[in-house]
Amino acid sequence: METLILHEDPVSGNCYKVRLTAAHLGLPLERRSYDILKGETRTPDFLARINSNGRIPVLQVGDRMIPESNAACFYLADGSLLIPTERFDRADMLRWMFFEQYNHEPNVATLRFWLAFVGEQALSEAQRGQLSAKRKAGNAALAVMDRHLAGRDFFVGDRLSLADIALFAYTHVAPEGGFDLAPYGHVRAWIGRVAAQPGHAAMVG
Amino acid sequence: METLILHEDPVSGNCYKVRLTAAHLGLPLERRSYDILKGETRTPDFLARINSNGRIPVLQVGDRMIPESNAACFYLADGSLLIPTERFDRADMLRWMFFEQYNHEPNVATLRFWLAFVGEQALSEAQRGQLSAKRKAGNAALAVMDRHLAGRDFFVGDRLSLADIALFAYTHVAPEGGFDLAPYGHVRAWIGRVAAQPGHAAMVG
Repeated sequence: METLILHEDPVSGNCYKVRLTAAHLGLPLERRSYDILKGETRTPDFLARINSNGRIPVLQVGDRMIPESNAACFYLADGSLLIPTERFDRADMLRWMFFEQYNHEPNVATLRFWLAFVGEQALSEAQRGQLSAKRKAGNAALAVMDRHLAGRDFFVGDRLSLADIALFAYTHVAPEGGFDLAPYGHVRAWIGRVAAQPGHAAMVG
Repeated sequence: METLILHEDPVSGNCYKVRLTAAHLGLPLERRSYDILKGETRTPDFLARINSNGRIPVLQVGDRMIPESNAACFYLADGSLLIPTERFDRADMLRWMFFEQYNHEPNVATLRFWLAFVGEQALSEAQRGQLSAKRKAGNAALAVMDRHLAGRDFFVGDRLSLADIALFAYTHVAPEGGFDLAPYGHVRAWIGRVAAQPGHAAMVG
C-alpha cells in the first residue's frame, strides 16, 4: 500500500475513527496535526492542497486525498474482516455509518465540541439556540442504538465492523458533551466490548 | 434477488435516490407511500416494523430492512458499474455520499422541505433561526461541488456512480429551497449530463 498520512486534529472523534481502523488492521499511519479552533483547516493552502471542504480528517494515500472519516475507514478496511462479505450486511454496515453522520455526529459530537472545547460561554446565540434540539436528537440517536444492541454484541452480524468503529468514536466520549449514558445499558455494555477487542487503540494515547 | 419494497414519501429526494438507482439497474421496486407531514413514519407500527429511527426511505429486501438512502442505493448497486471497482475510487464515491448526507442534505434538502412543503409561515422559531446558517452552508456545499466538477464529467472517475445519484437528488431541485444555481455553472452542466444518462428516471413521473 502507498504511504498513508492522516491529516487530523487529535481530539476529534472523526479522526480517531481512522486511527482505530488502522490500529485494527495493523497499518502504519503518519500523522499531521491541525488545530480546528485556530482555523488551521481553513487556510488557503489547506483548502487548495488537502480538502476544499475545509475539514478533517483527510486520509492521504500517496498524493491522493480521501476526506470524510467514514470513507477513509472504508478505504483502509476494504477487503478486510472489518467489512462484512455478505451483501445485506455490507449495506447494513453502511446504514449505521450514514446514521452516525446524519443522526449521531451532528448532535452527540457537536455538543461535545461546543461544551468541552469551545466552551458554553463562547457559543454564539445561534449555537445556544440549538442546544436543546441537539440534546434531544442526540438522546434519540443513543436510544435507537440501545434498542438495536439489545441481544446483539455488535451492530452488524456477530463481529466488529466499521459500523462499531464509527459509532464508538463519539459515543464513548458522549459524557464530555453532557450526555448521560446511564439509561443506555446495551450501549454501555457494547462500549466495553469494543474497547476489549484485540487491536483496540484508545482515543488519546 | 428477493422482492424489493421501497417505503417512501414520493416527494423526498432521499427516496428518489433509491428509485433512480433501481431505474439505472433495471430493478423492479414495489412502492409503499407514507406522508412525512402527517407523521406516518412515526407511528408505533412503523417504528416497530420498518425503522426504529422513524425515517424514510427504507428499502425492504425480503423481510429485512435497510434504512438510510445511500446505504439502500449501495445495496442495490453492489457489484454493478454504479460502484467503481478501483479501491481508491470506491472510497472516493463514499466520500461524496457522506459529504452529501453531512454537508448538503441538512442544508439544501432541509431548506427545500421547510420552504416548499412546511411553509415559511409554519416554521418554528428555532427553525427560522437556522435559515441563514443553512442557506450559507448549502451554498458552501454547492461551491465545493462546483469546484470539484470543473474539468470533470462526473464526481468519481469518468462515468456515473452512486456519488452522482446521491448528489443529483436534492441538487437538481435546490431552487425549490431558494437556492440560485446560476453561480454554479459546472453543477448546472453536470445536472444536464446526469439527466441525459441512459436509464435516467425523473423525480416525479
